[in-house]
Amino acid sequence: MARHRVVVLGGGFGGLYCVQALRHADVDVTLVDKRNFHLFQPLLYQVATGSLSPGEIASPLRSVLSRQRNTRVLLGEAVDLDPARKALILTDGEVPYDTLIVAAGARDAWFGHDDWEQHAAPLKTIEEATRIRHRILFAFEAAEREHDPEARRHWLTFIVVGAGPTGVELAGALGEIANDTLKHDFRSIDPTQARILLVEGASRVLPSYPEDLSKKAEASLIRLGVRPYVGVKVVGIDESGVTVEHGDHQTERFPARTVIWTAGVRASEFGEILAKRADAKLEKGGRVAVSPDLSLPGHPEIFVIGDLAYYADAQGRPLPGVAQVAMQQGSYVSRAIRLRLRSAQKYPPFRYHDRGDLAVIGRAAAVARIGRLHLSGFLAWLIWLFVHLMYLVEFSNRLLVFVQWGFLYLTFNRGARLITGAEGREKP
Amino acid sequence: MARHRVVVLGGGFGGLYCVQALRHADVDVTLVDKRNFHLFQPLLYQVATGSLSPGEIASPLRSVLSRQRNTRVLLGEAVDLDPARKALILTDGEVPYDTLIVAAGARDAWFGHDDWEQHAAPLKTIEEATRIRHRILFAFEAAEREHDPEARRHWLTFIVVGAGPTGVELAGALGEIANDTLKHDFRSIDPTQARILLVEGASRVLPSYPEDLSKKAEASLIRLGVRPYVGVKVVGIDESGVTVEHGDHQTERFPARTVIWTAGVRASEFGEILAKRADAKLEKGGRVAVSPDLSLPGHPEIFVIGDLAYYADAQGRPLPGVAQVAMQQGSYVSRAIRLRLRSAQKYPPFRYHDRGDLAVIGRAAAVARIGRLHLSGFLAWLIWLFVHLMYLVEFSNRLLVFVQWGFLYLTFNRGARLITGAEGREKP
Repeated sequence: MARHRVVVLGGGFGGLYCVQALRHADVDVTLVDKRNFHLFQPLLYQVATGSLSPGEIASPLRSVLSRQRNTRVLLGEAVDLDPARKALILTDGEVPYDTLIVAAGARDAWFGHDDWEQHAAPLKTIEEATRIRHRILFAFEAAEREHDPEARRHWLTFIVVGAGPTGVELAGALGEIANDTLKHDFRSIDPTQARILLVEGASRVLPSYPEDLSKKAEASLIRLGVRPYVGVKVVGIDESGVTVEHGDHQTERFPARTVIWTAGVRASEFGEILAKRADAKLEKGGRVAVSPDLSLPGHPEIFVIGDLAYYADAQGRPLPGVAQVAMQQGSYVSRAIRLRLRSAQKYPPFRYHDRGDLAVIGRAAAVARIGRLHLSGFLAWLIWLFVHLMYLVEFSNRLLVFVQWGFLYLTFNRGARLITGAEGREKP
Repeated sequence: MARHRVVVLGGGFGGLYCVQALRHADVDVTLVDKRNFHLFQPLLYQVATGSLSPGEIASPLRSVLSRQRNTRVLLGEAVDLDPARKALILTDGEVPYDTLIVAAGARDAWFGHDDWEQHAAPLKTIEEATRIRHRILFAFEAAEREHDPEARRHWLTFIVVGAGPTGVELAGALGEIANDTLKHDFRSIDPTQARILLVEGASRVLPSYPEDLSKKAEASLIRLGVRPYVGVKVVGIDESGVTVEHGDHQTERFPARTVIWTAGVRASEFGEILAKRADAKLEKGGRVAVSPDLSLPGHPEIFVIGDLAYYADAQGRPLPGVAQVAMQQGSYVSRAIRLRLRSAQKYPPFRYHDRGDLAVIGRAAAVARIGRLHLSGFLAWLIWLFVHLMYLVEFSNRLLVFVQWGFLYLTFNRGARLITGAEGREKP
């Protein structure tokens, strides 16, 4: 009898952890991804700010899985699904499955303002991270060349929209770049004069964190020269700046040449394919509602995990779109598959074990919630460092990143400050 | 009295070494470059073959020079020269000089076959290196998906045109990728079946090296599965392969989907501007003929150094376009400027001290000529490693590269095997 075929769509945290947990299962696994690498997304902002190189936060999927003999990697883009024939349709072929795990992730959302995309840089992919790096470094270069003081001030104004973990970490890193890294690099401008604005619609930074940690994070940001603007709504973004609306409906305009967007995500468009072909119900943000065992209602052979899945906890709140959730769901589904193959009729539903939250603001400054414990400062930063290094997939990457961070910590230097790509040779 | 203004065009080996040697001189230095980083070109092939990340072989010019207080860095592109007014013209402004040092380097040459450029990938810039990396990795991915044996063989055929040091090093690294790095990564193809052809017009690989070292290099290449074709002339390159002509005028066709071009360079187009504006005489490959002190005949205030300069040694042979020559010329010119400022009427002409040649073929295999000493194998490889690490400009880069190479040596792994860029999501 042919072996049970498991097809996993997406090599992010959910998909990859699921595949790895199937290592010793008696199944044939195919991992389909349109990129040839697993990306350690939580450190993407470090590529955007020139601390790390793309190769250091990404691992080739083939290399991670090369010794896992029951698994093949397929570079391809899924564009449709045929649940009746149990086939995943790619642009150039199809892959038959017995069990399908959809871990297609999330993408940026502009909340109905798609025109903002051309002015506010998103941060979801390696390419977007290097583009942001280019924009930040180029802004300092342009300011150095500019003679008009007002135009120069606009080049030296950076606006980060969204004060979730990514926005906070990015704004903190920008503060360090301006105040430490580039301090001696220019002759006409003073990089410490750069203005870094962090705009957030909620009433505090890190709104998903406990309030005392938000306060600590805000204080750390201010020490780094970042100005948090909370409780303000972005109502306009164009090439010359950002317009916000305060709680009292007064609007304010901030001229700026560099705007970075970390404010919203929505689920992958594969959710719509699941809705069309397999009657999936889409919830807020385009996420796919799943059964207690993470399968698609009416399709026990299809699982949806990670950022794409909408799964409510006991209190009815959807789980957040973070790596932790995706990884636990990946492991759970691999267990579910193994139990089913052993003809287990019943197995317990998925339960999320919240291990806590971590965000880093700068050199030796972070905030952490571990269960009911709240930490900040150097100790939280050490925990952050340890947790992130341990999760980096490949050993060589892990050590390299460690060496790099050691240097960054000692020297304030950022080795990967390169302006590359087609834009590197053009005026903006 | 205003200080003497030295303007250096180009932050490659010649320009950067000249600027650094002027550190304590009583002059104002401006370094103009269109890129914001110094590139360690001899290791570019390692980026192309996924061993190193771009950030590891490039250092931001501002960072290298940040403590040198008499020096500013200007990101800009030089498009013209006005020797009468002593001004270098940029796309967006001009820079006045008292002494100008032109170190604008070289670019690819296609010997009148500009249509080959779209099929044979050149290797001069960071962007070209990542594009080659993409093409190599994608070829293996495409072969894995391909069912037709002949089409698959074409995907698995790689042709490197030109067996100078870059071509030899690239072909050797390709051999290692196919035989070691990717060995376990695929399920349908066997990467060790890849064919790597190294095509050279001269009668041996490394034609500028002593004959015994060429033989050694050839043997090492063959051990890595590379097939050297010497004494054959490329007469055609298109999307489906390469046509060569043998010594007996018989032609042969090699179908291949990946062709890499390392066969020719010509001097920067700034040479033509020097010819038009300052009566420079252009020699073979567009290089600018210079006086014994490296100044432009008739323009003692303009120096030309590095790959752009045509300078013949005592035997009338032009110096090669290598880093060693550029660095020595940069130091020489900085001395000449300091002597002139002290009103020295005379100073000795430039003399090149040939320290030798080094090329690496693979893991623990290299050839070296040091004066009259010829070395090969592990010892030559150790010398190569040491020399290259010592020259990498920034300390943090140096250590990181060392760690990476250590891992590569121990594990055969290549961490930076990412397919990025717009092409990453498309079929070729």
